[in-house]
Amino acid sequence: MKNNIQLEEAQSLLLNRIIPVGKCLVSLLESSGRVLSQDIKASTNIPPFSKSALDGYALIASDTRQADSSAPVQLRVIEETRAGFIAQEKVVSGTTIKVMTGSPIPNGANTLIKHEEVVRNGDYVSIFRTIKAQDNVIKAGEDIEQGKVVAQKGSLITPPLVALLAGLGISQVPVYAKAKIAFMSTGDELLDPSETLQPGKIYNSSLYGLMARCCEMGGHPLDLGIVPDEIAATTARISRGLEEADIVVSTGGVSVGDYDVMKDAMVGAGAEIIFWKVAMKPGSPIIAAVKDKKLIIGLSGNPAAAMVTFDMILTPLIKRLMGKNNPLPDKIQGVFADNFLKASPQRRFLRAKLERKDGVDCLKLTGAQASGILMSMIGCNVLVDIPAGSGPVIFGQRVSGHIVGNISDGYHQEPVEVYEEEPKREELSFS
Amino acid sequence: MKNNIQLEEAQSLLLNRIIPVGKCLVSLLESSGRVLSQDIKASTNIPPFSKSALDGYALIASDTRQADSSAPVQLRVIEETRAGFIAQEKVVSGTTIKVMTGSPIPNGANTLIKHEEVVRNGDYVSIFRTIKAQDNVIKAGEDIEQGKVVAQKGSLITPPLVALLAGLGISQVPVYAKAKIAFMSTGDELLDPSETLQPGKIYNSSLYGLMARCCEMGGHPLDLGIVPDEIAATTARISRGLEEADIVVSTGGVSVGDYDVMKDAMVGAGAEIIFWKVAMKPGSPIIAAVKDKKLIIGLSGNPAAAMVTFDMILTPLIKRLMGKNNPLPDKIQGVFADNFLKASPQRRFLRAKLERKDGVDCLKLTGAQASGILMSMIGCNVLVDIPAGSGPVIFGQRVSGHIVGNISDGYHQEPVEVYEEEPKREELSFS
Repeated sequence: MKNNIQLEEAQSLLLNRIIPVGKCLVSLLESSGRVLSQDIKASTNIPPFSKSALDGYALIASDTRQADSSAPVQLRVIEETRAGFIAQEKVVSGTTIKVMTGSPIPNGANTLIKHEEVVRNGDYVSIFRTIKAQDNVIKAGEDIEQGKVVAQKGSLITPPLVALLAGLGISQVPVYAKAKIAFMSTGDELLDPSETLQPGKIYNSSLYGLMARCCEMGGHPLDLGIVPDEIAATTARISRGLEEADIVVSTGGVSVGDYDVMKDAMVGAGAEIIFWKVAMKPGSPIIAAVKDKKLIIGLSGNPAAAMVTFDMILTPLIKRLMGKNNPLPDKIQGVFADNFLKASPQRRFLRAKLERKDGVDCLKLTGAQASGILMSMIGCNVLVDIPAGSGPVIFGQRVSGHIVGNISDGYHQEPVEVYEEEPKREELSFS
Repeated sequence: MKNNIQLEEAQSLLLNRIIPVGKCLVSLLESSGRVLSQDIKASTNIPPFSKSALDGYALIASDTRQADSSAPVQLRVIEETRAGFIAQEKVVSGTTIKVMTGSPIPNGANTLIKHEEVVRNGDYVSIFRTIKAQDNVIKAGEDIEQGKVVAQKGSLITPPLVALLAGLGISQVPVYAKAKIAFMSTGDELLDPSETLQPGKIYNSSLYGLMARCCEMGGHPLDLGIVPDEIAATTARISRGLEEADIVVSTGGVSVGDYDVMKDAMVGAGAEIIFWKVAMKPGSPIIAAVKDKKLIIGLSGNPAAAMVTFDMILTPLIKRLMGKNNPLPDKIQGVFADNFLKASPQRRFLRAKLERKDGVDCLKLTGAQASGILMSMIGCNVLVDIPAGSGPVIFGQRVSGHIVGNISDGYHQEPVEVYEEEPKREELSFS
């Protein structure tokens, strides 16, 4: 068992033990937000055939060589097709076929003219200018060429990729299965939020916050609830988690103390301890163990500490379980737009929010930073990474951080409210 | 009916007609990612009582006034409590109560000392230094004071907010209902991706891409499928959408052309046309109508154009339907890191990706920009906004844009791969 290791070593020790979960096929709509379990190669061109970019006439460019505004060329309309239907006739010199946007280019034709540009008279159209070959032709494979790898194994499936897969005729998408993560909290002081508050007790906030994070990244949380501070009960709950889930996560019972039972319970469940404590604040008391290649991770009972370590350690593990190529939080550098006057003998993660000012990434604290303070996790999208041995961090200092939430709203540079007034109450009747 | 209006006017005309959908209560875990339908006020302090930050001894600070390393003060341990249980005794001068992390501070005590700092001998502990009042005491309300508004109506519920709500004992969360959005595509050339490709036909990509976007923002898509290019069928499908959904979205049938039926079908369904065409490229052919206060929006049949207008116009409407305060895409300014040599007589949106280089927001094109090209929507997280009447846009030019995807990965400044090798195949046996 290692003790008080660096965060990066902890991440590496655990990520190296992760074997992605199984693969499955899901429908197109279900695939959005999941991770591709194999490369997707285009089996056809997109578009599959050369087609018209507009409503107009397909013709042979050389027929219009002599055309000008005073001496139009006349072509005979031999057929009218529309999108989805193929012309039966072949365009030969002196003839044209009317086509719609998206119609395949008729045989023999090599260019197109917009219907607003011609004058139609019975079966004839007059053309008043020279047309180049391939004008307004969307070539087969212009969007995607057959054989091209359009998306790689391990990439996140976004809505545009869903559209692209649909365009390739893929209706069942190969993805990694959802990772099942079991969650439990130890602590005699904890109540479920659905219970009535009692003296000396507090509501268990961590469990729901962490399960929501798990859902957010597409994982499947299993709620094992609250366990009393007692070794046998905790051991039994861990064993149940190991049976049902890919990773077992607990909160509480990991610091030094008479009732801290997690380590003994893990060993009792037959697991081998990998490390205890990571050199970071908040979240230092974290314990990691493994049984039958499944990880059991015990996080701090302090809600903010649990969430910070979840974001820095568990999130990458869960993403990796589900096949994600780059599971670690993205990094950011910026200017500290606050004053944090405590020294940091230990490496410290400060909860902050990115705000863009004049093109500069400013990182501003979201509130008080004690391990128990959850309020400052609200709105936090960056964890500023203060190295061990640092003094106070002051306004204007360059800092690094890890992105743990949506940073887009830091980019607001002006209010975007566009409505003049709220809809009236009497308008609510229809809903 | 207005014609060829500015994007901002289109957004405003439509947003002003949106009346948020109804409200409902959902469980904590289901609330993540949804929008609060009322302010949340803390009904209790968090923590609800002053408690110990550590495992140690609760005492009266003034009892330690004379203590030093050579002359320790001795206190009698009158009780041992643990987290979740309240001390029965009262600390009086000369006594102490043992407490655990999270234990309520016993009556009479006003400070705490860590258990590692004392020497215990039977019923007595020796203390070797003076302790200040309130040391290691987490005060009631330190995280959240009773009565404080912790989250406002209209804000997105993130996992940390889920944790906070749990901590307040809220197990049912007031949110806006899911908006129901009906989707249909018109076009005789379209096939569902589950069908076999036929000559002259293409797979319908837009429908699935747009439905996935709808899911991504928490909406509920209704799939009305593909409709033939024919007024009566389209009218009937629109009417069905209006019965079942809050907004009806279609693709195709909106440009000038013999088989373009959307406008007639909307009127046939009893709707009033609000506008036709928005001055933007791609996506100019868009038609908006209203019936019984429900919107019907027809988008371009070109997949990329449909997605761009969906992101700029439909996404804000759907977010607003579900109560979101600031539904428009966030804005960004940056340096164009590409060359786009065409002039832009019309306002143009270029598909780009944010990449951070030396602290500068660089916006790089994601590929070819024609209306039919879907490939360049993959990886696009910013739509660069080129004003009407612009010439070529060149490398290094300042540009503005709208954020339409996750911009975090533009912040990668180094590879983050941490594993030395892939897990071995023989390790896969357990899963």
